[in-house]
Amino acid sequence: MIAPHFKKIVIFGVGLIGGSFALALRKANAVGEVVGFGRSLETLQQAQQLGIIHRIGQDIAAEVSDADLILLATPVGQMAELMARIAPHIGNHTLITDGGSTKGDVVREVYAQLGNKAAQFVPAHPIAGAEQSGAAAARADLYVGKKVVLTPLPDNSAESVARVRKAWELCGAVVSELTPTQHDEIFAAVSHLPHLLSFALVHDLAQRDNRDQLLSFAASGFRDFTRIAASSPEMWRDICLANRDALQKELQLYIAELNQISTALATSDANQLEKIFHRAREVRAAWAEK
Amino acid sequence: MIAPHFKKIVIFGVGLIGGSFALALRKANAVGEVVGFGRSLETLQQAQQLGIIHRIGQDIAAEVSDADLILLATPVGQMAELMARIAPHIGNHTLITDGGSTKGDVVREVYAQLGNKAAQFVPAHPIAGAEQSGAAAARADLYVGKKVVLTPLPDNSAESVARVRKAWELCGAVVSELTPTQHDEIFAAVSHLPHLLSFALVHDLAQRDNRDQLLSFAASGFRDFTRIAASSPEMWRDICLANRDALQKELQLYIAELNQISTALATSDANQLEKIFHRAREVRAAWAEK
Repeated sequence: MIAPHFKKIVIFGVGLIGGSFALALRKANAVGEVVGFGRSLETLQQAQQLGIIHRIGQDIAAEVSDADLILLATPVGQMAELMARIAPHIGNHTLITDGGSTKGDVVREVYAQLGNKAAQFVPAHPIAGAEQSGAAAARADLYVGKKVVLTPLPDNSAESVARVRKAWELCGAVVSELTPTQHDEIFAAVSHLPHLLSFALVHDLAQRDNRDQLLSFAASGFRDFTRIAASSPEMWRDICLANRDALQKELQLYIAELNQISTALATSDANQLEKIFHRAREVRAAWAEK
Repeated sequence: MIAPHFKKIVIFGVGLIGGSFALALRKANAVGEVVGFGRSLETLQQAQQLGIIHRIGQDIAAEVSDADLILLATPVGQMAELMARIAPHIGNHTLITDGGSTKGDVVREVYAQLGNKAAQFVPAHPIAGAEQSGAAAARADLYVGKKVVLTPLPDNSAESVARVRKAWELCGAVVSELTPTQHDEIFAAVSHLPHLLSFALVHDLAQRDNRDQLLSFAASGFRDFTRIAASSPEMWRDICLANRDALQKELQLYIAELNQISTALATSDANQLEKIFHRAREVRAAWAEK
């Protein structure tokens, strides 16, 4: 029998992201034992019943000290506290990665909380659907063909990065690397802004006295546009605040774009409107074909 | 054999909207003969081959004079000219309806072009997907369970409205009535604005030097949000201009909403952000369950 890539993995947060990571590595025979920690005993018991984790962790210090790999898959807002708790116990050969949607804030906390063990943390952002959540939603194939972005620290050794990359690749992911700043700027534009805009449209209509009548005529275009407004309010509050500066910049660029369109409307500038719509369709179609 | 509801229907524009109307009524055995007019002979021939129309019309004056029902299913931008051409020939018992996405502009043209025959025109807006187009996309079941909004004129007789309503109901549609102004205000909010916002986001990103890198990290949220940016630029240019005032009003309300969110971001007002997102999700979820 071939030895597993990771003898022991400790996962904090056994929901969609953490649970799917565990299921995928177990399916790939890449892990000997998965130990789970979490805030809800019920979720941990469910995760054990679903074959996500082998054991529910009791003693953080003991479990963390001999782990090959730790995954932080809690909401980003809880990561600082968690890092502070595990910091004194992290083994010399233990690697750590995470599943957070923003990276600049995670990296700041890594340096603030982990001290001389920061080099063992290789930050990651798995780009996998978050409409569902919880252990029951976890799937061994969640990451298959999906992108995972690593934002390695200058302090990470090449070997540490390679090993964390391997873990995500064993889950079936397509792994790429960006700096934390690049990552946060890119995701502000293509993910955080669209979520904000979708929430904003529904909230805008929700304020109206005639909202029921309005919504009774909403159709498939509205459905698609607002699907991401069904996402977790708490998670998106945290993401927006964690990536506040890049998101604010994108929001202002977007408002400028809307003001440009408003001017075209006000002057009935048919050419300008058609040009904008045409260019958008062209770029969107080229993207969708890839 | 039961006599068909309509002995002869004339359709201008045998694409998705007009073609599906014809197919649905033929399937319901509700029409004796369907005659098609259009700008492209090729499309008309295709429509005939697909069993959408019985005949390609040659003589507008002759065909229009003894039609029971005329459907104008051309782009809204062509309707004024078309109304002017058919006006002198409309029979005394002929009813007319249309498939335009805006109604205030259509109603203005009805009064401007049809003179004393305006009372025979019962405007309609079928709310049916427009991502595909052309005769080949027409389907007998396009309207099944879909909403069709009539915006009757004060001059329409109750019988005329009932008969046009019946035609759309025979297509399987759920028919409701609004005034043209109500219609245009509602659709500015739930359809025209979202389309504008979706086009605007893609256009905003399309302007960037790093657009390829940005788009390479766009995922399912972006896909949903921008699906309607794949719509026809020409059609949406016309809709935006036809419903300019109501759309402009909605656009300004939306920009105000974004400015409110921008302030919450700038002050790191977590409560306010969560409140907005939470309310949006709640309203969106209630809508989606209906």
